[in-house]
Amino acid sequence: MPYSVEWIDDHVRLLDQRLLPREERYADLSTSDEVAAAIRDMTVRGAPAIGVSAAYGVVLAALTAEPDDRNRPVEDAIAVLAATRPTAVNLFAALDRMRRVLRGSEKDDLVAALLREARQVHQDEIDASLAISRLGASLIPEGATVLTHCNAGMIATAAGGTALGAIVEAYRQGKVARAIATETRPLLQGARLTVWELVREGVPTTLITDSMVGHMMRTTRIDCVMVGADRIAANGDVANKIGTYGIAVLAKAHGVPFYVAAPTSTVDLSLRSGEAIEIEERSASEVTSFADVRVAASGPEVRNPAFDVTPHRLVTAIVTERGILSSPGTQELRRLAGPSGRRGK
Amino acid sequence: MPYSVEWIDDHVRLLDQRLLPREERYADLSTSDEVAAAIRDMTVRGAPAIGVSAAYGVVLAALTAEPDDRNRPVEDAIAVLAATRPTAVNLFAALDRMRRVLRGSEKDDLVAALLREARQVHQDEIDASLAISRLGASLIPEGATVLTHCNAGMIATAAGGTALGAIVEAYRQGKVARAIATETRPLLQGARLTVWELVREGVPTTLITDSMVGHMMRTTRIDCVMVGADRIAANGDVANKIGTYGIAVLAKAHGVPFYVAAPTSTVDLSLRSGEAIEIEERSASEVTSFADVRVAASGPEVRNPAFDVTPHRLVTAIVTERGILSSPGTQELRRLAGPSGRRGK
Repeated sequence: MPYSVEWIDDHVRLLDQRLLPREERYADLSTSDEVAAAIRDMTVRGAPAIGVSAAYGVVLAALTAEPDDRNRPVEDAIAVLAATRPTAVNLFAALDRMRRVLRGSEKDDLVAALLREARQVHQDEIDASLAISRLGASLIPEGATVLTHCNAGMIATAAGGTALGAIVEAYRQGKVARAIATETRPLLQGARLTVWELVREGVPTTLITDSMVGHMMRTTRIDCVMVGADRIAANGDVANKIGTYGIAVLAKAHGVPFYVAAPTSTVDLSLRSGEAIEIEERSASEVTSFADVRVAASGPEVRNPAFDVTPHRLVTAIVTERGILSSPGTQELRRLAGPSGRRGK
Repeated sequence: MPYSVEWIDDHVRLLDQRLLPREERYADLSTSDEVAAAIRDMTVRGAPAIGVSAAYGVVLAALTAEPDDRNRPVEDAIAVLAATRPTAVNLFAALDRMRRVLRGSEKDDLVAALLREARQVHQDEIDASLAISRLGASLIPEGATVLTHCNAGMIATAAGGTALGAIVEAYRQGKVARAIATETRPLLQGARLTVWELVREGVPTTLITDSMVGHMMRTTRIDCVMVGADRIAANGDVANKIGTYGIAVLAKAHGVPFYVAAPTSTVDLSLRSGEAIEIEERSASEVTSFADVRVAASGPEVRNPAFDVTPHRLVTAIVTERGILSSPGTQELRRLAGPSGRRGK
């Protein structure tokens, strides 16, 4: 499985996820502005992968700045990177770590210190993904059919995957009979990326449109839902790809366990509930066009919220690298996710 | 608004709904086989419009047959037309009416008698649409935001529309502030057809993906859901476009009234419940490709059920041309829909 993010000598290499599965092309980026643009246009996507990419972007800002005056351009780069996408909190958590290193480092050691920290952010996400995959797999019963939404896989994270990592790990353990992937409109991360990863891993996979989840739950056995998260509030409310909330309501109606798999870097203890999570509104053209062909009639207002919020009462358990929280609430999340899960603002 | 189905002199003219909104092209069909193909490939779609088209298709079979031996080819044509699509019952109801005329007519009068009956099937659907639009509009409150799914509009019916007819009628009465249309994957009837009709009628319209319904219900006021139906079982269970069931579950969870608007020709009293409704499974390519561009990764099994079943307990009311049924059950539906709603088998 290719890497979504890699540091190579003096630059960042990103797998261009917009072109998958038709083309496996990489972008070599040498400035933090290029990294910011790549996050914005979703060359790289997935909450953990965004955080890692941004951390390397900060290193690039230091590398390309005048050696005698690195602080201002690096601070500016952090601000630009933080403004790329508003919902996934891993981005802010990674940038906070980089800012702390920036402020605590000697001038001569700055580039090396930032690169060390970015590599550590990366390694932490890899470690978290592996731990989450193992823990998540333990929730999946023998012979299971598991439904997932969007892509919380190897390419959404720095490696391993969260929700999809758990499904693949459980498959390797012989427990998964079938994975069901929603296509995930508008950008089709499910049809393009999740199916691509699952088929590569040999997992028997069924692709459905987002609108088929209810019918599948009514007419076939689905043992659990396993999704990722872009931000988790202190009370356990989960922001994830648009459509997640509807799946959670259907899961509740059908008695299907609904699991969220995400690193503690996704937990934002500064937000009391999901109501406070900013939901990114993306371009209308993502909805009105399909594969670059205009499909919708002209004239309507178009809504394109990229995420929605699933209230914690619909979440059976949250799987983090530090453990599984059943019926997650504020106290449990504070204990598990603090202090490294706390966003420093 | 253009007609979806028209009888012109000696042939059927269908609006090619696959090409909308990019192109308004008509197909002139002179044989029943052409009509059957047009129903199968969804040149014409929408339960009432399918029924009317099939009725005219039977006329074409009589017209093109040898004058001395019309019965066999017409019976054969009815069988072929009945096998085009399995879910919308209007098709079978219309064909039953044509078969009765076939069996009850003198040889010399057959073509004229079949054409009279087909025109009557057509007129009945027009009358039903108008009555449904008026009755449905009465359920929509002042200043309402109404959500609809798929297309139950002027072009899905022979004229006027059912669910969409009610929304447009309520808009003309000054009651509708906004209509929300789901895009309706895989064939995008919402984005292509419903938005096209609503914008033509001047209704303020918001287009969303199917996955956004839950988020919209959580974050904005939606006063009611109004959808059409392809078949209604005797107990009030409703088969409609895939995704309808999920919307009904979300509507229940949010206390939003869920209305189904459909002619009594859609009611199938021969089926005790929705479990017995055959759900058409369409081609995988509708899900994996768009505009002839492959979008999904290769290798998965693909499911493409065209409809789902919403249990009657989730239906606030069914609006028919003969009245509104609140909390519809078997007795009420038998009273309202029999005998013309009964499928003669």
